Amino acid sequence: MSAPRVAAPGSGGGAAEPEPVRGRGLELELGSSTQTSHRLLAYSDALLSIIATVMILPVAHTKIHPDQKLGESVQQLLLAKIAVYLMTFLIVTVAWAAHVRLFQVIELIDDVLALLNLACMMIITFLPYTFSLMASFPEVPFGIFLFSVCAVVIGLIQAVIVVYGFYHPHLLNQQIQVSENQNFYKRHILKIILRGPLLCFLAAIFSFFFIPLSYVLLGLVIVFPHLTRFITWCKTKIVGQRDEEEEHRSLESFTFYLSEPLSKERVEAFSDGVYAIVATLLILDICEDNVPDPREVREKFHGSLLEALSEYGPNYLAYFGSFVTIGLLWFVHHSLFLYVTKATRLMGLLNILSLAFIGGLPLAYQLTSEFAEKSHNEIEAIQVSCVITFFASIFQFAIWTTALHERETLHPFARYGGKEHAFMFAKLALYPCVSLGAFFLTCLLSEFSTAIFHLMQIVIPFAFLALRIFVRISLTVIKSVMSLSGRKVVLLEEEEACLSPTETLS
Amino acid sequence: MSAPRVAAPGSGGGAAEPEPVRGRGLELELGSSTQTSHRLLAYSDALLSIIATVMILPVAHTKIHPDQKLGESVQQLLLAKIAVYLMTFLIVTVAWAAHVRLFQVIELIDDVLALLNLACMMIITFLPYTFSLMASFPEVPFGIFLFSVCAVVIGLIQAVIVVYGFYHPHLLNQQIQVSENQNFYKRHILKIILRGPLLCFLAAIFSFFFIPLSYVLLGLVIVFPHLTRFITWCKTKIVGQRDEEEEHRSLESFTFYLSEPLSKERVEAFSDGVYAIVATLLILDICEDNVPDPREVREKFHGSLLEALSEYGPNYLAYFGSFVTIGLLWFVHHSLFLYVTKATRLMGLLNILSLAFIGGLPLAYQLTSEFAEKSHNEIEAIQVSCVITFFASIFQFAIWTTALHERETLHPFARYGGKEHAFMFAKLALYPCVSLGAFFLTCLLSEFSTAIFHLMQIVIPFAFLALRIFVRISLTVIKSVMSLSGRKVVLLEEEEACLSPTETLS
Repeated sequence: MSAPRVAAPGSGGGAAEPEPVRGRGLELELGSSTQTSHRLLAYSDALLSIIATVMILPVAHTKIHPDQKLGESVQQLLLAKIAVYLMTFLIVTVAWAAHVRLFQVIELIDDVLALLNLACMMIITFLPYTFSLMASFPEVPFGIFLFSVCAVVIGLIQAVIVVYGFYHPHLLNQQIQVSENQNFYKRHILKIILRGPLLCFLAAIFSFFFIPLSYVLLGLVIVFPHLTRFITWCKTKIVGQRDEEEEHRSLESFTFYLSEPLSKERVEAFSDGVYAIVATLLILDICEDNVPDPREVREKFHGSLLEALSEYGPNYLAYFGSFVTIGLLWFVHHSLFLYVTKATRLMGLLNILSLAFIGGLPLAYQLTSEFAEKSHNEIEAIQVSCVITFFASIFQFAIWTTALHERETLHPFARYGGKEHAFMFAKLALYPCVSLGAFFLTCLLSEFSTAIFHLMQIVIPFAFLALRIFVRISLTVIKSVMSLSGRKVVLLEEEEACLSPTETLS
Repeated sequence: MSAPRVAAPGSGGGAAEPEPVRGRGLELELGSSTQTSHRLLAYSDALLSIIATVMILPVAHTKIHPDQKLGESVQQLLLAKIAVYLMTFLIVTVAWAAHVRLFQVIELIDDVLALLNLACMMIITFLPYTFSLMASFPEVPFGIFLFSVCAVVIGLIQAVIVVYGFYHPHLLNQQIQVSENQNFYKRHILKIILRGPLLCFLAAIFSFFFIPLSYVLLGLVIVFPHLTRFITWCKTKIVGQRDEEEEHRSLESFTFYLSEPLSKERVEAFSDGVYAIVATLLILDICEDNVPDPREVREKFHGSLLEALSEYGPNYLAYFGSFVTIGLLWFVHHSLFLYVTKATRLMGLLNILSLAFIGGLPLAYQLTSEFAEKSHNEIEAIQVSCVITFFASIFQFAIWTTALHERETLHPFARYGGKEHAFMFAKLALYPCVSLGAFFLTCLLSEFSTAIFHLMQIVIPFAFLALRIFVRISLTVIKSVMSLSGRKVVLLEEEEACLSPTETLS
């Protein structure tokens, strides 16, 4: 086995994340009146990531008969459940983003804040139920009304947290603490936090008159942060310098943390939660569905457990395949974020889109585990799996390209010309390429679709192990070709030269 | 609302946990060849805690008919599933403890170690399935054989990790790196890691001849670490000084980390995972069971969704009640570990026992949510809930008393005479007292059991909010009574005087 070593330059320990250290130092100075928020935030991240992802279970558990060619009624039911999953996922990520901003302002906590935060979490975990009601009764206003009430309550609790925090200024971010216009910050953070609940309040009122408008308002809650950002960006492009200056001015009046709304540590914690719950949900299905009935074993298989279990062979294969996929996608994410020094809002959005597809993987498992029954849906199942894997991985790749094009978001090692650039590129490009390739191969060679899919799942882990050697060999080959043609350049420059065109293409 | 503030002296930032900081500093020095293991460990903790807890779902989903007085066949089924849950929980915690020790020796990772660790996690997540087979077919050797094979594979992967780590010494703990007898450490950690798999290997062999012996061997895997500890403890008590000296000598030859097998950070991360997954599993049940069928609403309730939902009223109450219980138990755990500076092995064991009962709470929810049906099991359901809550909280209390009686495990603020001692005592004693009280009240006043239970759930959160005021008032009262009787002592000493007798009693 080779021993590829990866550079890990200042993973999170750099200049981008001084909060925890600062908070801890401050707390030691303060002595006895407060606690760091670190563990509260870790617990909240775990709760939010699990609740965002767990709604894929009802989708995956929708029974599709193998002799039924995805009939219309099943499609309808499946679509409703997928809608519930996506709505939950997106709204929870919006709530998570608000939570991140809130606890960037309030850095230390006390018992009251901890209890208020738990109350807030309780209401958030109730949201999936309101979506289930909405999906089952789209024309009844009660579902949307209940959701809006929950959202308003969440907003109010968070507003209480803000007011409490500003009433006890030693809990606040130090930059705000020493600032003269605390009231300005208070108003600003309240505006960010209450924007969503206000829209929901309107949605609740309209739900009794004109439901479609309510749904539009709810959609607005999800896209609003990105919409305002996009409009500002468009304005800058069209009107030019003036607005950019204005934006710059407004940025100046804020702190570093407020202008950069995501903390890398919390993005990692949230992502870890999603990957972990998705990986473990799979075994639940195995335990519930694939333990044979003792009586059946006696009667049908003459008491031979092994024979009975061999029926489930493809399920085990699908389980390990799915686990490997999730594990390796986590591995790629982990490698990527080792080099990310700062998470911008766009990178956060791309990460959330990637996670939404990761959350869809149990569905892919459920579909591919039904190969045994030689259903008509075999090719569709494989193609759905490939598509989900492709989107999950391509959004990871997009995070990287975004990071490459922004300032101070990547460690120099991973930038163009950095010594890990080529390797990272290969790592991130592996899954999109393979899943896309498998998709088209199954279209062309539909006879061998199962074989292709299983081959893909077996080959990929070894590909990751051998990747570094492969990258090194290909770089050496390119280098020698280059030097043969008479051009003598430093290796690092060549890496950049040969990789950046490919990258801008993809 | 009152504003109780809690002292947070050096939460994890003290002298007990320098590893992450050290690792990060070292990695910055090393530059490019390795990564810190921090995120890998967080992800592993999340995976392990979820997999340990998630097997309660099949237990909670066992349908008990309300007109059936917990018949024998249901009891049998329930017992089998509870056995699967407990076995999974215990074996996963053993694997987790081994994992903690392993990554105390290996502090930095590279890509190969990350992939090996993922492979290890994959096999661990498969363990619950082997337990399901064991529980369904107790007399067939295949289940136990499959489990043993998995355990052996896990042990081998971990052994490969150790060998790989010692082959690349810069990955190791610095104390071992500079030590002269690395081989001694290598042998020692291999012995710890391969002890369990060796027993499992024997169990696999015996499973074909004499199954009960296999089960005994498996049980031994779980209790072995504690058994050796207990035997040493007994020896010390009986034989006296000699063995203690010997133990001390063997401790000296080890590093600080090896003699103290649990890292506080990872105990917290594992506990957070369990609390988070238990809190979120509940809403899955709500979403799957409590969304009425559209046709039923049309026919039975004349299209009134509200009326249909009002049927589920008690379920919502049970949901919020369970969430509040879990949330507040997390809150107590969080407050406790703010003052814990070092986690000993006994504290880790008590914590795991507490978590095992926390994992049982979804079962309590499932039982109490069936109140609506006025079943015969009502009182039993409430009593089971009380018992689970009582044990979960009494083990937390036990962690505290253990920490009080060991050296350097608690911050001075929480020790006898510390200014937070009385408050912590009240916080930790609240749940055991209330749940025990509710249990006996339901025995006496079986007519009002539901009312008592709901009252308990509503009162407790407010009790937590008002606890600090209550403690302060009672301390003042005691103080004035004391000073009236002529004894003038400093307040802090009184706290100790009035609280320690109560504590030794309970």
